[in-house]
Amino acid sequence: MKDLERAMLATAVAEARAGLAEGGIPIGAALYGPDGALLGRGRNRRVQDGDPTAHAETTAFRAAGRQRHYRGTTMVTTLSPCWFCSGLVRQFGISRVVIGEARTYHGGHDWLAQSGVRIVLLDDAECVAMMREFIAARPKLWHEDIGDE
Amino acid sequence: MKDLERAMLATAVAEARAGLAEGGIPIGAALYGPDGALLGRGRNRRVQDGDPTAHAETTAFRAAGRQRHYRGTTMVTTLSPCWFCSGLVRQFGISRVVIGEARTYHGGHDWLAQSGVRIVLLDDAECVAMMREFIAARPKLWHEDIGDE
Repeated sequence: MKDLERAMLATAVAEARAGLAEGGIPIGAALYGPDGALLGRGRNRRVQDGDPTAHAETTAFRAAGRQRHYRGTTMVTTLSPCWFCSGLVRQFGISRVVIGEARTYHGGHDWLAQSGVRIVLLDDAECVAMMREFIAARPKLWHEDIGDE
Repeated sequence: MKDLERAMLATAVAEARAGLAEGGIPIGAALYGPDGALLGRGRNRRVQDGDPTAHAETTAFRAAGRQRHYRGTTMVTTLSPCWFCSGLVRQFGISRVVIGEARTYHGGHDWLAQSGVRIVLLDDAECVAMMREFIAARPKLWHEDIGDE
């Protein structure tokens, strides 16, 4: 099971790396169907598109287009989802969230677990290192992205 | 005070009506600065753009572009914000939410109130009527928009 989750995380990490290369915030995500098919993938695009709603999870969700329901789907993200993205998961009934790491930022995943969403925290060293380096290098941009004065 | 809030709601209602005229879901919103200046306005664009993240509140927030912080801002919306849009308000520290109505849908505004967001519920008859008629006419589309199977 962990192999499948690791493979999903690799997609999110590839998105995060691509975002970093574009001068963006290195957070990536993807939405997978119940059968493991990739429905959508994306990365944080605040810098690239000047869009403050373009967190990685919302971008991946948007890329998946209109769906009738989200039962059995998995959202994978390199970083613990913020309240906005946690609200997305809860509102649309995404069944599971696979998280790269929650050391550099602890969002709403405990709240999601309480509401019945399956949470898998992989505590991935590469995800931690990528965010640590980014936050150290661009603290103002990072705080802007999470609405932290 | 209620006059100012009613004037803000009128902007959101105009967005909702425009959405309805386009064949979309009639929910509108706007973000106002601490000084009462309009920062962004928008409407639900699920149908128009095929974008499931385009709830009215996220569309208005996006239209306001990148902001350093949201202290003192007001989000006005014709309908009680869902978990996704409530998460947006909480994450970015929007100070106040003015809501047209919460009769046809009760989202996360109690949760926001508990976290310190000021909630003003106007219980506007036009907002209620617009959503009642829409839900009766297009129930499948409405359920899709809130992730309700």
